[in-house]
Amino acid sequence: MDKAICLVSGGMDSAVTLAIALRDFEVHAMHVMYGQRTQERELQSFRDLVEYYGIEQTLIISMDYIQRIGASSLTDREIEVPMRVGDKGIIPNTYVPFRNAQILSAGVAWAEAVGASKVFIGAVEEDSSGYPDCRESFFKAFNDAVSKGTRPDTKIEIVTPVIHLSKTQIVKKGLELKVPFELTWSCYKNIDKACGECESCQLRLNAFRGAGIEDPISYELK
Amino acid sequence: MDKAICLVSGGMDSAVTLAIALRDFEVHAMHVMYGQRTQERELQSFRDLVEYYGIEQTLIISMDYIQRIGASSLTDREIEVPMRVGDKGIIPNTYVPFRNAQILSAGVAWAEAVGASKVFIGAVEEDSSGYPDCRESFFKAFNDAVSKGTRPDTKIEIVTPVIHLSKTQIVKKGLELKVPFELTWSCYKNIDKACGECESCQLRLNAFRGAGIEDPISYELK
Repeated sequence: MDKAICLVSGGMDSAVTLAIALRDFEVHAMHVMYGQRTQERELQSFRDLVEYYGIEQTLIISMDYIQRIGASSLTDREIEVPMRVGDKGIIPNTYVPFRNAQILSAGVAWAEAVGASKVFIGAVEEDSSGYPDCRESFFKAFNDAVSKGTRPDTKIEIVTPVIHLSKTQIVKKGLELKVPFELTWSCYKNIDKACGECESCQLRLNAFRGAGIEDPISYELK
Repeated sequence: MDKAICLVSGGMDSAVTLAIALRDFEVHAMHVMYGQRTQERELQSFRDLVEYYGIEQTLIISMDYIQRIGASSLTDREIEVPMRVGDKGIIPNTYVPFRNAQILSAGVAWAEAVGASKVFIGAVEEDSSGYPDCRESFFKAFNDAVSKGTRPDTKIEIVTPVIHLSKTQIVKKGLELKVPFELTWSCYKNIDKACGECESCQLRLNAFRGAGIEDPISYELK
């Protein structure tokens, strides 16, 4: 089996992406902590998922400077996390500047070091928050930079298997692949019970409602 | 004056790049430690350069995971640093997988957060070690990824002012701009006196010889 890196934040999209990657690859799982509000809880979800799937090769990275750079409500405690899903076309303040490029660059470096041919990331384009670094056009351009900026004998590709799925389709895909959604975390705000009100909780709750099943994690409000 | 980020490793190429950036921009200087053999010495050069130029906005980042990813003689003490300049077309083992993408991504994030329009990097293409992430084609592709992956109202560009200069031309440009070369560090191996034998020392010594002046730093051998 070829090797692949899979970036696993611990949220539902990355968990489904991980299950997809595991069908065809020997997965190396990477997790990045960047000073976001819920980083301890997300790390727990990462640990639970890799244990569940018996993944042996893991890399946990701290990019604490992403918090120092700030300019996002996820990393700056002075900026409030919005309590509703934003309007289409407006990038919400939860956007973390160029975060996916930072995480992907480390994933590609690990891929080059271990001889992996793919780097999986669970980005979602349309049915999500409108972050610029979640668009397919960004990943396409980034893939070109990967091809130019790594050793000529390597062939590493960023893979985004859920990018054009709706959140409901992602839940359905996860059910089909028996993804343990009870181990995942999406809330931007809380670390014990999900708040049920932030943008990320609302997108997740709507996704499960759309799929006609109950989200297995606990909420303060829903 | 517009703001620009300048990546400053502490070597001669980045010092000249910094002097170039300072002519037209309010510079924010960034330095990355990544577990390389000489990181403490390079950090000292960074501190000396920003003090010399009176730069107030600085960001020192630790990417310790680059060392954990390894696969380079600069970060893995088990791999020997080559003691000669390698053959053209062969990437030496001092190459650090996708390092420049990792550093540039953080630079772009800082640029987006502070409203800077440029990210300067002192990469050199032809007259250097042949690293894939120092080629103009890589920066061109990366610029496209920056344009796609940041907020639509930002316009951030990677700038490589010395990429097509020879190392001797870089020394000459530095002399013209009164760059304090005595504060810079290039040796891959030592932290007190430069070894004079490693690839990086040899490229530097040749550059100063070509420019017909004495390198102001001390060497064990030259």
